[in-house]
Amino acid sequence: METDQKQKRSLRGERFFRWRGRDVSRVENLSDIVFALSLTLIVASAVPASFAELQALWREFIAVGVCFALVLLIWSKHHAYFRRYDLEDGTTLFLNSAVLFLIMVFAYPLKFLATFLVTFFTRGYTSGEQIGAVMTFEQTGMMVTIYAAGYAAVFGLFALLYAHALRRADVLELSEPEKEMTRLEVRQGVAAVVISMAAIALAWIFPAHLTPFAGGVYFLIGPVMAWLSSRARKRAETYEAAGGAVS
Amino acid sequence: METDQKQKRSLRGERFFRWRGRDVSRVENLSDIVFALSLTLIVASAVPASFAELQALWREFIAVGVCFALVLLIWSKHHAYFRRYDLEDGTTLFLNSAVLFLIMVFAYPLKFLATFLVTFFTRGYTSGEQIGAVMTFEQTGMMVTIYAAGYAAVFGLFALLYAHALRRADVLELSEPEKEMTRLEVRQGVAAVVISMAAIALAWIFPAHLTPFAGGVYFLIGPVMAWLSSRARKRAETYEAAGGAVS
Amino acid sequence: METDQKQKRSLRGERFFRWRGRDVSRVENLSDIVFALSLTLIVASAVPASFAELQALWREFIAVGVCFALVLLIWSKHHAYFRRYDLEDGTTLFLNSAVLFLIMVFAYPLKFLATFLVTFFTRGYTSGEQIGAVMTFEQTGMMVTIYAAGYAAVFGLFALLYAHALRRADVLELSEPEKEMTRLEVRQGVAAVVISMAAIALAWIFPAHLTPFAGGVYFLIGPVMAWLSSRARKRAETYEAAGGAVS
Amino acid sequence: METDQKQKRSLRGERFFRWRGRDVSRVENLSDIVFALSLTLIVASAVPASFAELQALWREFIAVGVCFALVLLIWSKHHAYFRRYDLEDGTTLFLNSAVLFLIMVFAYPLKFLATFLVTFFTRGYTSGEQIGAVMTFEQTGMMVTIYAAGYAAVFGLFALLYAHALRRADVLELSEPEKEMTRLEVRQGVAAVVISMAAIALAWIFPAHLTPFAGGVYFLIGPVMAWLSSRARKRAETYEAAGGAVS
Repeated sequence: METDQKQKRSLRGERFFRWRGRDVSRVENLSDIVFALSLTLIVASAVPASFAELQALWREFIAVGVCFALVLLIWSKHHAYFRRYDLEDGTTLFLNSAVLFLIMVFAYPLKFLATFLVTFFTRGYTSGEQIGAVMTFEQTGMMVTIYAAGYAAVFGLFALLYAHALRRADVLELSEPEKEMTRLEVRQGVAAVVISMAAIALAWIFPAHLTPFAGGVYFLIGPVMAWLSSRARKRAETYEAAGGAVS
Repeated sequence: METDQKQKRSLRGERFFRWRGRDVSRVENLSDIVFALSLTLIVASAVPASFAELQALWREFIAVGVCFALVLLIWSKHHAYFRRYDLEDGTTLFLNSAVLFLIMVFAYPLKFLATFLVTFFTRGYTSGEQIGAVMTFEQTGMMVTIYAAGYAAVFGLFALLYAHALRRADVLELSEPEKEMTRLEVRQGVAAVVISMAAIALAWIFPAHLTPFAGGVYFLIGPVMAWLSSRARKRAETYEAAGGAVS
Repeated sequence: METDQKQKRSLRGERFFRWRGRDVSRVENLSDIVFALSLTLIVASAVPASFAELQALWREFIAVGVCFALVLLIWSKHHAYFRRYDLEDGTTLFLNSAVLFLIMVFAYPLKFLATFLVTFFTRGYTSGEQIGAVMTFEQTGMMVTIYAAGYAAVFGLFALLYAHALRRADVLELSEPEKEMTRLEVRQGVAAVVISMAAIALAWIFPAHLTPFAGGVYFLIGPVMAWLSSRARKRAETYEAAGGAVS
Repeated sequence: METDQKQKRSLRGERFFRWRGRDVSRVENLSDIVFALSLTLIVASAVPASFAELQALWREFIAVGVCFALVLLIWSKHHAYFRRYDLEDGTTLFLNSAVLFLIMVFAYPLKFLATFLVTFFTRGYTSGEQIGAVMTFEQTGMMVTIYAAGYAAVFGLFALLYAHALRRADVLELSEPEKEMTRLEVRQGVAAVVISMAAIALAWIFPAHLTPFAGGVYFLIGPVMAWLSSRARKRAETYEAAGGAVS
């Protein structure tokens, strides 16, 4: 019987979480539109006038794909948050507004960076001068700072949102595994902020010709997130086994 | 028990109000999209071609932030109105259409003003001529008039919307505290209109070199709104204490 | 008791109609977005660079207002249709797609015509040559044809949509007054098509210098629609009095 | 009684399918916005400055109409999928993200191709050079490849989505006719991929002056889809007759 319910939940939802929100609330509606419009800002350019122009867009195609993946990843975090807690109070609205602002404002910078990196790694620049016209070595420190700050801000806001949900845990009637999964999100958000600050610090400490490598600290994101996640999952399973019915 | 319900309500809603609307209605859906599109009109410019161009956008970043805050503030007023009363009759649709028109039409003027003020106060203009090319002293009177009229129109429309809800109070079965909170909104709307008209009057009475200070009358908004709000809250609490169950 | 229910219905709905749709369906959601985007296409131009440029936009402000009113009028017809019948079958989706196509495609032409007429009637053109550069006398015949065809297409599609609902009256369990109101919409749609075809015919029959007056036939719209509407309302009231409970 | 229910279902839904989703979920909401924005990218150009410019847009009008039809066709497939199964799990979100990416990214290429074909077939190009400036014979092979790949990707993703639903058939409690209709969609998706790959192969095998005809293989789409569909419908009817109640 319980297995049955778990399977049902797997259709719409998550293993350790009962989704409190079902209908799309207005905050979610506004947010969906802002996310989609951010995607449009990333895609929109100009209708190609000739097939040669169209073909020349293959680099943009890849860059847009990368931006899409990132924005939709943040959307899925946003989606999970509101499905899980269905909060619509003042604090949530305020923090969410800040997230929406960043999502919109970073659309163009994201496209700029993605296009630059794709063009760079697919050898789209034919000379060092061409690269320098877009970005000089001296500017990479500032570049790492701007993007790391944006990254930290988005994930820091999600940490605050999850911390807010945790403070309301009793009223929300979160089960033990649910509390654990909420704590996981707070920790992941804090980890993202710490790593971003490390990247910014390195960008200013490193000598100019090494600053591009300051961003390399982001390779830590994967392992750190995975470690936090597996630890939390194990704990949630222990709680569950100990008799804490989730639903 | 009652405390329990109040806590629940704090998750989605307000202390003195039972939210009648739950699902997003079509008016709300259309309005959300219009609000988000207004935000897009404010954000949209052009993808920066070089990192230098991207960095030069920091003033726009602040200006866009200010516009976002204002538009999202109006959105949250709009959100509260429809959650509270769930009205979808002809009068509401008509007044709401006028609000949407203003939200869209003022997107560009808002960005213009915010960019001007941010550039001015961050010393982005290097000479008086540069400022004069964007706006002359003689034009400030007209500027105050246009923006104050827009401000008055938006908040006046909200006053009319709330007055409309008040007229239907019996059918909506508003409790006494709810009626009081509705009256508060009407009064705040009227106050916004009066202050805006004072600003316009001063802009035309003042000699040309003082007109920029006519806008200073808006510093009254904060205290006036806070005074009206605290007065209404006290009354609502008295009603509540006198036995008027809210839900 | 019955009066009570009628009053409730007046909050969200119509006198003679029980709204079958409550939640926003996906067709409605898509349509809302398309309507709002059409409004954006009408509004979007460029952020003014100086206050003089901003002030010069007052004509556009009026023109955009007129377009908004028209698009939101069609939206409210669309809104009523789906609230009333809550249809989502193949025929409805197909006819609705055609409406959406016209709403989007006519955004620019609408803005063009509104701007032209507002500039013309506010004496914004300083010479006959200036007017001729935008539109010549010889082109008015074609102009009347294009806009009348668009108008006829939109209202013709609504006539088809309502006729489709009428064909499903039994399954929808429409009451007699509801059927009468549905028939009214079909008749109003047909009237709009007939008047549009008259305007087109006159535009080609009239000598060139009179063609602008062919559009004058649209002054018939008001009285004709009012007459059809009052006739239907009287009949609906008779049905209601004769004992046909609406809800 | 059963006939009654079937008729009701015909108002919103399908003969062989009970719709599991009713409210618009967030995935659907985001998707609707992305579809509508793709339509906007297709429509958006510039407000005509004169009536002559407006009239010159008739070719674009047709081209936009063709693109609209195609995008709304895909939308209706998307609509059916989520109404039918109401899935919102990780796999569905991921595959759906890929669909949204293609819908947005192919907006401009679609408009480019439609405009080219409409201009070509309405004799809008006055010389071979004019055509050559937009597309040369040598480029048609690549063109067929790009568009066929896009077509294959979209329908391949739908095949994967339906296959995913089929794997969850037990939890979704699909009836036999419903399973058959789901299998139909998988097969149609696979057929679209196979035909697209045939078109690409032919485009590279054919000598340069024949490559445009490689696209002709798409004329197979109609008959193949119809044959698969009628076969599945017959089977579904057999299941139904054999006593499998659908609802």
